[in-house]
Amino acid sequence: MKNLFQFGTFIKLFTISTFLGMSLQLGAVAIYPIHQAEILVGSKFDLKVEFDKVLEPSEVFITMNDKDITTVIKAPPEHIRNEDGKGSSFVWRNVSLSNVGSVNLTARTADDKNQFLSVQWNVYATGERKAKNVILFIGDGMSIANRTAARVMSKGISQGKYQGKLSFDDMPQMALVGTSGADSLLTDSANSMSAYTTGHKSSVNALGVYASRATDNLAHPKVETIAELIKRKTKMSIGIVSDAEIEDATPAAMVAHTRRRADKQYIADELFLKQIDVILGGGAAYFMPQTEKLSKRKDNNDLIRLFKLDGYELVKTKTELMQAANKTTTTKLFGTFHHDNMDGSLDRFFLKQNTVKDYPDQPDLTEMTQAAIHVLSKNKNGFFLVVEAALIDKFNHPLDWERAAFDTIMLSNAVQVAKDFAAKNKDTLIIVTPDHTHGGSISGVVSDEKKGALREKVGVYADAGFPNYPKANQQGYPESIDVSKRIVFNYGNFPDHYETLKPKLTGTFVPAVIDKETKKFVANPIYKEQHPEAVKVEGNTPSTNEAGVHTADDGVLTAMGPGSDFYRGFIDNTEVFKGMVQALGLGSKK
Amino acid sequence: MKNLFQFGTFIKLFTISTFLGMSLQLGAVAIYPIHQAEILVGSKFDLKVEFDKVLEPSEVFITMNDKDITTVIKAPPEHIRNEDGKGSSFVWRNVSLSNVGSVNLTARTADDKNQFLSVQWNVYATGERKAKNVILFIGDGMSIANRTAARVMSKGISQGKYQGKLSFDDMPQMALVGTSGADSLLTDSANSMSAYTTGHKSSVNALGVYASRATDNLAHPKVETIAELIKRKTKMSIGIVSDAEIEDATPAAMVAHTRRRADKQYIADELFLKQIDVILGGGAAYFMPQTEKLSKRKDNNDLIRLFKLDGYELVKTKTELMQAANKTTTTKLFGTFHHDNMDGSLDRFFLKQNTVKDYPDQPDLTEMTQAAIHVLSKNKNGFFLVVEAALIDKFNHPLDWERAAFDTIMLSNAVQVAKDFAAKNKDTLIIVTPDHTHGGSISGVVSDEKKGALREKVGVYADAGFPNYPKANQQGYPESIDVSKRIVFNYGNFPDHYETLKPKLTGTFVPAVIDKETKKFVANPIYKEQHPEAVKVEGNTPSTNEAGVHTADDGVLTAMGPGSDFYRGFIDNTEVFKGMVQALGLGSKK
Repeated sequence: MKNLFQFGTFIKLFTISTFLGMSLQLGAVAIYPIHQAEILVGSKFDLKVEFDKVLEPSEVFITMNDKDITTVIKAPPEHIRNEDGKGSSFVWRNVSLSNVGSVNLTARTADDKNQFLSVQWNVYATGERKAKNVILFIGDGMSIANRTAARVMSKGISQGKYQGKLSFDDMPQMALVGTSGADSLLTDSANSMSAYTTGHKSSVNALGVYASRATDNLAHPKVETIAELIKRKTKMSIGIVSDAEIEDATPAAMVAHTRRRADKQYIADELFLKQIDVILGGGAAYFMPQTEKLSKRKDNNDLIRLFKLDGYELVKTKTELMQAANKTTTTKLFGTFHHDNMDGSLDRFFLKQNTVKDYPDQPDLTEMTQAAIHVLSKNKNGFFLVVEAALIDKFNHPLDWERAAFDTIMLSNAVQVAKDFAAKNKDTLIIVTPDHTHGGSISGVVSDEKKGALREKVGVYADAGFPNYPKANQQGYPESIDVSKRIVFNYGNFPDHYETLKPKLTGTFVPAVIDKETKKFVANPIYKEQHPEAVKVEGNTPSTNEAGVHTADDGVLTAMGPGSDFYRGFIDNTEVFKGMVQALGLGSKK
Repeated sequence: MKNLFQFGTFIKLFTISTFLGMSLQLGAVAIYPIHQAEILVGSKFDLKVEFDKVLEPSEVFITMNDKDITTVIKAPPEHIRNEDGKGSSFVWRNVSLSNVGSVNLTARTADDKNQFLSVQWNVYATGERKAKNVILFIGDGMSIANRTAARVMSKGISQGKYQGKLSFDDMPQMALVGTSGADSLLTDSANSMSAYTTGHKSSVNALGVYASRATDNLAHPKVETIAELIKRKTKMSIGIVSDAEIEDATPAAMVAHTRRRADKQYIADELFLKQIDVILGGGAAYFMPQTEKLSKRKDNNDLIRLFKLDGYELVKTKTELMQAANKTTTTKLFGTFHHDNMDGSLDRFFLKQNTVKDYPDQPDLTEMTQAAIHVLSKNKNGFFLVVEAALIDKFNHPLDWERAAFDTIMLSNAVQVAKDFAAKNKDTLIIVTPDHTHGGSISGVVSDEKKGALREKVGVYADAGFPNYPKANQQGYPESIDVSKRIVFNYGNFPDHYETLKPKLTGTFVPAVIDKETKKFVANPIYKEQHPEAVKVEGNTPSTNEAGVHTADDGVLTAMGPGSDFYRGFIDNTEVFKGMVQALGLGSKK
């Protein structure tokens, strides 16, 4: 019996993937969880084995640590006779492993002992609980250059020395995080946040599942989220805060199990069903019955009514949020402040562009964080809170770096709220991390006083000097960004667009628009009209992309509090989960 | 008496710089060291005050902590009566401060008590010595994307999980480093390395001096380097290793005090005069008398002969290096293996391009590191070693990311040599850090199998999948980079160039060449000839730049060993020095 899939040796791994690429008849073609999965002891997951032909249960032979799996898992698997016309699948739902150590799973057809597929998992336990509370901040798409730009604008820099630090600049622990998913070097936010909330890698667009060959988005093999684990194993409270739609990928990864992050109605349902105690963000449209004007639901369910019936305080504005949060009786809080994504701080505080006039009373991420902590911390069993600064990513995509910098400042302010709480509640673990990066970098200072073509106005090295943004206000924001010496922030990838080297004062940058004939995205001509000196830049990503794309560069995670010393050196994104379950003792023997 | 320059308040700082920008007649116009300088107790520096008119000593009034400076520093200052026609300057050479705490220096003309310039310094001491040895690795220009690319190529990635780590990926301490200089947001390597070796910020092109208005490169106010401090205060040995010219900015910052890093003959002299015990690198041309063919000196000094007379072992090839390092009597070692910069690992090991055929027996950075440690560690008083992986920067500049990745792998191998030493010599502090960053990012995987224009062959998100570089060899390098699925590595800033998305197999990428008529750099047409599908990209930096430029994004520092826990959170580049002198106790009372 020859094992094609030796563990720990990259050569053999490479061999097997080459075989798979060549579509050799292996019998078993996929096992989920995948090879090298790290599995928390006692956590629930679906085990799925896919074969490339139609097989009866008696025609397959699957072992777990050399034992016939039917002797290990008594319940019979779901037998999908011919899944999507590709062969039989066998799924054991909601299994868990109680012993730590290596688990070797092999699968083959009963009649061919020489060809089999094999994966190895590592099952790990945790120590005792160290942290009462965990607050996980996601700076969606936040790259080092976003952070540097925010520090320059918010704290100022004098003779090369920053005149202050962002709130997450002085945390004791720092790590680099590898963000790639199981399917690609380049992740999206579903996939990457799913790694944080489940400890399992997934694929682009997938949440809380391994992307198998199932055709139903909801039928893929599931892995338990930290929210589900906490609800099942503890009496802690859970909060989810985001300035995106609250059904967007990052917050959704706390509760959802779907191959497609676009299943937002399902995700809204899950937010209710999973009994998340505090939910604050945008995305109201998916909670309203389709009869309501702005609803995006395809049914008549009125989730807002259900939340109310279930005892949640309901809020729709900053004013209402503050009132509800301050009520001593509030322990469950549901607030949606926008039908879609909320507005960023540059618009809300200064420019009043985008949808600020339609939604004049949106809370800040800091206020949502404050309210969430205030409500959740009433639970003496502790809480788990996720806060997403979603708009950093949403502004990086269309190359609108100033808006991304302002929302990085806002994240810093929100983290400060958590640090203030942790100063009095030292049993609180705080983590601040991007889920993936963008390719931004600061490569000069552009001066309007310089002559010549746009590029000649860019100062580099000694000729750059310093930008002249005014000193930031009390909230840490400079009151003006349209100054004469500005940061030059270049993105490494982009669609066709016009470069103006000017802040976009009338609304978020829309670099490219679709050409109706070719169906390709082309440079948005409006910026050339507004700025005759603008330079047309040809995109370097496929012309089907309307915006910049994520990068595979490691993200920078910072952390403080009990259990934060787990986060050191380079870690895989699945280890962000591991550090949190370690801190909460979610796999301890007690 | 009104103090224009209140400390610690950004508003007032801003006010004063506005005043300076407006050229108000302040009398005193500059003080060096600059405001907010952090000064190691007992370290030497030149104190310079510049006035904007010609003044006799009796016509100026300078105070240190409210005392007339002439009562604090007894030796009279150098009086430069009319420096460069701009006014009088007063310089106290080689002063030092013996008490910790704030030092407030004010300067004014004797007759105007209302207008004065003032700076505040912080003088700090260190604790006892914690580390016997310090090894400082500089990954010149190394950005996160260089590190990620090196990890993908060297360790492989399977289903999103890296199959190994770079040697500096698992060090316990990590920090972000702000790299800006006193004059500009954008630093060069002189300026940034000078901050590491002196603890003082400087300006682009300057080494070991504050860039004052002096006209003589060597007359600017000096600050002591860590090499000078160590030689003056301890019996430790010092080594400098680089694969650039050993007179290049980064290694030069250990010994030089000049406004212009281009003073390479002076720098070569200083390397000899400062009695650096081990010197290994490129740049032989500045050590040979001008009579020799490849010499770049302007005099007849034969430094190599001087090194020999002084008892150094001299080596010129890897073979000689190994022999000399292994001799038990070798305690001083001088090796230059190239007249210019050495060749990178992609060329030396695989492609045999650039100057490899002319210099077939160059040592690797790992071998130089090994030899240096072997020789230096004979000193029972400990050693300080700087190792620069210079070529990461030298390949980032011309957008040659594969070569930069290979030299990042080489840095990882060199750091492993130091870690192996530290495993047996636990009293060794190891630091690995860039001096500044470049704007690279990994934004996709290009597949030759895809159809269409170049950009349409770029896979992003799920369409990226993974590159198919072969498994790395024993040294950690993939044997081929010209595979069918390659990393797409985009730089954020660049000169005019042709994008081919192909590795440059015939020598380092030369993106732009000068147009003799316009004196501007234009895309090098050779790449269009070689690759008809190449896409012309218009540069986004001034057209006087032949290559990409440095970025202001924070660098990522990692560290291990005694004293490494100093490096946490965000730190200024001057604090890299502070951590090292803390570890070595160079400002302790003993």
